[in-house]
Amino acid sequence: MMHIGGKLEIASRVPLKTRSDLSMAYTPGVARVCKAIEEDRKTSFNLTIRKNCIAVVSDGSAVLGLGNIGAEAAMPVMEGKAILFKEFGGVDAFPICVTTQDAEEIIKLCEWIAPTFGGINLEDISAPRCFHIEERLRQKLPIPVFHDDQHGTAVVVLAGIINALKITSKSPDTMKVVVSGAGAAGVACTKTLIEFGCANVIVCDSKGAIHRGRHFGQNHTKVWLAENTNPHAEAGSLKTVLEGADVFLGVSAPGILSRRDIERMGEDPIVFAMSNPDPEVMPEEVQDLVAVMATGRSDYPNQINNVLAFPGIFRGALDARAEEINEAMKRAAAEAIADTIAPDELSPEYVVPSVFNKRVVKNVASAVARAAHQTHVAHRMPKGTSIYHV
Amino acid sequence: MMHIGGKLEIASRVPLKTRSDLSMAYTPGVARVCKAIEEDRKTSFNLTIRKNCIAVVSDGSAVLGLGNIGAEAAMPVMEGKAILFKEFGGVDAFPICVTTQDAEEIIKLCEWIAPTFGGINLEDISAPRCFHIEERLRQKLPIPVFHDDQHGTAVVVLAGIINALKITSKSPDTMKVVVSGAGAAGVACTKTLIEFGCANVIVCDSKGAIHRGRHFGQNHTKVWLAENTNPHAEAGSLKTVLEGADVFLGVSAPGILSRRDIERMGEDPIVFAMSNPDPEVMPEEVQDLVAVMATGRSDYPNQINNVLAFPGIFRGALDARAEEINEAMKRAAAEAIADTIAPDELSPEYVVPSVFNKRVVKNVASAVARAAHQTHVAHRMPKGTSIYHV
Repeated sequence: MMHIGGKLEIASRVPLKTRSDLSMAYTPGVARVCKAIEEDRKTSFNLTIRKNCIAVVSDGSAVLGLGNIGAEAAMPVMEGKAILFKEFGGVDAFPICVTTQDAEEIIKLCEWIAPTFGGINLEDISAPRCFHIEERLRQKLPIPVFHDDQHGTAVVVLAGIINALKITSKSPDTMKVVVSGAGAAGVACTKTLIEFGCANVIVCDSKGAIHRGRHFGQNHTKVWLAENTNPHAEAGSLKTVLEGADVFLGVSAPGILSRRDIERMGEDPIVFAMSNPDPEVMPEEVQDLVAVMATGRSDYPNQINNVLAFPGIFRGALDARAEEINEAMKRAAAEAIADTIAPDELSPEYVVPSVFNKRVVKNVASAVARAAHQTHVAHRMPKGTSIYHV
Repeated sequence: MMHIGGKLEIASRVPLKTRSDLSMAYTPGVARVCKAIEEDRKTSFNLTIRKNCIAVVSDGSAVLGLGNIGAEAAMPVMEGKAILFKEFGGVDAFPICVTTQDAEEIIKLCEWIAPTFGGINLEDISAPRCFHIEERLRQKLPIPVFHDDQHGTAVVVLAGIINALKITSKSPDTMKVVVSGAGAAGVACTKTLIEFGCANVIVCDSKGAIHRGRHFGQNHTKVWLAENTNPHAEAGSLKTVLEGADVFLGVSAPGILSRRDIERMGEDPIVFAMSNPDPEVMPEEVQDLVAVMATGRSDYPNQINNVLAFPGIFRGALDARAEEINEAMKRAAAEAIADTIAPDELSPEYVVPSVFNKRVVKNVASAVARAAHQTHVAHRMPKGTSIYHV
């Protein structure tokens, strides 16, 4: 059973076979390295594992589709995430699962352990706490903090949308987008699409469309959505507002839409039904109706899989020693993913590249490092790249 | 330069080359592992890295001889410690350096991250906070918590003393022991020697002997020492109380003793001068006076090096899935180290084995696991060992 004893190990990068090895790697030789860092703490980004090591932090409150299963039970997922970081991005990632689910305590914890790491990937922390935790940590820490459930998903969705728009010739400023799900992923996708220029995005939660006139089931985040989305204040159920929509983004629950619902969308509908493992509507039900269809599954075309984004994003951020992962870097990542598919390869069945396409992480990392430099949040020149000639 | 980019990396223990690998190691295959742990959290000790992974936690407050250099600057030492754990004990160890130096906050942090780890090695945390932190965590956590600066040192010192007594035919209950240094190591050595049966131990700090009548420079720990050591309430400087002593244990400062001081000790004096890198008195100065001499250095005989203890102690504790590292386990470790030297090999120049003697970690791990079972703190039968036949 592959999970026994866990899925990762710590390996030494230096030899330890002789007394001389020992005295170099440990005391007394290590003392001058410590002193160099004490004199200038920034050198820790070069002289310790910070150079390439991030934490994957979770409180186990929203793990996959399993819900609030706690820290111990979340570990297999965080270990899996850590090995994906290593295998796809060459990023050393270590899982940290914590017993507290108090937002302020999680913020404190991340602050305390930050000297160990070059970045923090927040994972499977439930909304709306995840928004507050990420925002505060981004303000406080000098290293990138990235909630993958939000931004990893949003980056890959945007990549898919960019390519789907090439096929359908729809335009962000005139199309109608309906998002089902107001959790971490739904909110991040919405913000990213608005940033991308989408003028009419409507977000639905389990109670229907979120709009300015709605006064029930509102938290801080939903108030923001009510004020910043849905310009025509459309009310009603998901099925109601789906009328005439150009794009459906589902990050909600399996099987909530039928063929009839997709029929009522606008011309050449784009349907990203990403509920996992079972999508909001099965591709075979609506194949003849949709212009482009994507899901979260590997057994259908166009798998929206975060692994297309997070390894390259952190690879680029660490290479550039970026102090944050900002909007420009995420946008660059999405475009790099989309552009990995050449114009003549693009088709309705191929708007996002395969997770095993080795060019993805390379393209994403270069684009992210370049964007970090362009937005002045980088502290290192990644060597051997051509990014400064672009 | 061996330290660039740090001294350790995270490696995957499972293949990730195909879609099938991905869906086994990560979603959706990982879900049933999560569910198994959710149902019975104890299975995390088998189904995650907890089985073999410990944290090396430091606040950077007392690093080597460098003092309070902070979390970032402590990292090279903790990374070195981590790779020693791996190379010598096969234990995966991950460094966690923290910015807080508040004892209660460090306790909280260790509680929060405990689900990630099978044990916690506290390192380079200054006295007296280290005593309180370890004591509280031992009470609160279901995993071994071990402050190596205290107990690692004490175990190796006891091993050396056990063998030195074989050579000198001194007896714990009648000999006089003088300890120089009332920090983490000095206090732990003192407690261990009392536990071993030493009836007359006198501890000196920079202000001289600690005794019942002394009312200056006392903290909680020194009050304990005053009440539980120095039965004849000897007062005065280190040099004064050294008169007639059988054993000197130095964990204090370089060069504080001279040849004349050693001349004033009792017959066949045992001198463990472990200040690092320079001992309390140099071996060449007193070679003709001492029965047995040990230092912390690798360039003299009898190096008192914690690496003889901590890899095997945690190896044994993890193999037995011990919930703590108790006195019996530490005593067993010391005896195993001492017994690694066969009676006919034993000599004044060879009372502790070499750190590169592969039998040490094996012997220590078996002895520790056996002691864990005998004291009913073990939850797992280490396979392939003969420890139950002993």
